[in-house]
Amino acid sequence: MSETELRHAVGIDFGGTSVKLALVDERGKIRARRKFATKDAVGVEGWLDRVEREVADIVGKEGAGKQLVGAGVGVPGFVDFERGFIFDLPNVPGWTGVELGSLLAKRLALRVRVDNDVNAMALGECTFGTGRAYQHAVFVTLGTGVGGGLLINNRIYRGAHSMAGEIGHVSIDMNGVQSPTGFGGVEQYVGNRRIVEQMERAIDSGRPTIMLDLVGGDRSKLSPKTLKDAADQGDAVALELLNHITDCLATAFASIAYVIQPQAFIVGGGVAEDAKLLFQMLRDNVKKRLSPFFYRSLEIKPAELSSDAGVIGCATLGLLE
Amino acid sequence: MSETELRHAVGIDFGGTSVKLALVDERGKIRARRKFATKDAVGVEGWLDRVEREVADIVGKEGAGKQLVGAGVGVPGFVDFERGFIFDLPNVPGWTGVELGSLLAKRLALRVRVDNDVNAMALGECTFGTGRAYQHAVFVTLGTGVGGGLLINNRIYRGAHSMAGEIGHVSIDMNGVQSPTGFGGVEQYVGNRRIVEQMERAIDSGRPTIMLDLVGGDRSKLSPKTLKDAADQGDAVALELLNHITDCLATAFASIAYVIQPQAFIVGGGVAEDAKLLFQMLRDNVKKRLSPFFYRSLEIKPAELSSDAGVIGCATLGLLE
Repeated sequence: MSETELRHAVGIDFGGTSVKLALVDERGKIRARRKFATKDAVGVEGWLDRVEREVADIVGKEGAGKQLVGAGVGVPGFVDFERGFIFDLPNVPGWTGVELGSLLAKRLALRVRVDNDVNAMALGECTFGTGRAYQHAVFVTLGTGVGGGLLINNRIYRGAHSMAGEIGHVSIDMNGVQSPTGFGGVEQYVGNRRIVEQMERAIDSGRPTIMLDLVGGDRSKLSPKTLKDAADQGDAVALELLNHITDCLATAFASIAYVIQPQAFIVGGGVAEDAKLLFQMLRDNVKKRLSPFFYRSLEIKPAELSSDAGVIGCATLGLLE
Repeated sequence: MSETELRHAVGIDFGGTSVKLALVDERGKIRARRKFATKDAVGVEGWLDRVEREVADIVGKEGAGKQLVGAGVGVPGFVDFERGFIFDLPNVPGWTGVELGSLLAKRLALRVRVDNDVNAMALGECTFGTGRAYQHAVFVTLGTGVGGGLLINNRIYRGAHSMAGEIGHVSIDMNGVQSPTGFGGVEQYVGNRRIVEQMERAIDSGRPTIMLDLVGGDRSKLSPKTLKDAADQGDAVALELLNHITDCLATAFASIAYVIQPQAFIVGGGVAEDAKLLFQMLRDNVKKRLSPFFYRSLEIKPAELSSDAGVIGCATLGLLE
């Protein structure tokens, strides 16, 4: 198939900090990129104006002569996928109750699909990344919180009201940390800030650890990466903490496995990149928490698409029939 | 439609204590019943002989002139639904690695489907009971353990290897009770025996309660029903314990809701029958543990088919196209 015959779509990854756009072909390859700061496009109209301009620019330049079949948008919040309707974006003011799908379709004269950002990533990963091999998988993204997307019978499953996959709220302790979503939700233990808080407590305990040395003594620079680096160097405190964090995650994974029995968990997000030891500990802890019947047929794998997962996933939405 | 035009199937509910058979029509109505003790049919061949005889008897008598389209078997253990293959029945000796589907199909000269007993019940409940109204639901059965069946896109979802829906093993405490299936599985807290153990501890604590009076002072007669009766009469100890038990269950329900967002939980099994207070407490505790976005669109309802859920569900398997 020649390049001009390939189907293409525009992916629009709408984040709290930046909006990334990409022209992606049906093999998952990025042909062009654009980006702007979320704060530079004020309100829904401002955002539509800017996106329309960026897409026109891509289509006129890198997209010239290519077959463009649609656009997909991934947004950080609650969406009705069928209607392309945004209920609310908790971290972006002014985006409550927006018919983004139809508004953007008019601007671009393209078919537009709108989904939750994690679902979009899961779709991309399951079409062009690690998930290609599976019909039933759970995509997990580790970061500030813990996001999830479900692949069931080879399609993204959105539940009764487009909100399924909120695996960060799975409880690992009915008497645990309280949050607006319940008690003991796993992201209250393994979200990035929570990990750093636990690192600080470990440092304050006075046990010898190299974690603070790795950031030149500057506490504000502590991150989950520091923890992984210290653990890789054999730091006992870091190893213990990394084991605890993966065990919290393993508790949620085991519960999810007992409910839907996926073939695989596919784990992405900053902490999960370049994280051989983390994955080994995660697998060992899941094994401890699952019956052998469940564990032996379950895979736990890193995601592949890395920082491009967002735009590629959004474009994959646009490529859907 | 006249009765003779209705499609019928035989349901075979293979339990650890008894095997129940029923002729059921496509409206979910039972037209005939048979039953024998599981111990009276020795081994696979003995079981096939007996079932063949019972089915021939039903077909010759109550089934005469009726259109019989298939049979369904529900078994207490792990099954490959597609192949009609039993991996193992933990509580029935001699049933490891049995091609029950094809063996029984030959005996009966009927199409035969074999499934896990809870999946069969879920299918029956979702076809003829409370689940009729839903496309996405979780069927839960409370008893010795906690079983589950998932309705996703209007079909029973079995996961990657026919083992999905094991919701009794969902952890509510990562440091909780250890069992062969992990730590803190919810059925370690709300299974019938565990409930009675907690009742005994409450009685032994010396706090005033009528629970022992309700069984004439005979501890061996304590059951979850005693707890419900005492709670209905306003017994403070019983109310507290029932609240705790429903809260354990609510923790698992909330985790499941965050993962797959069903429209409803449909709860059956002895404890859940005639249990208005239990359902009220269960709803209140789930509400406490779910974001309002999830809770407001979630229903928690009693199952309808009661003790017939098993055979009706099995027959429903036989009615499947």
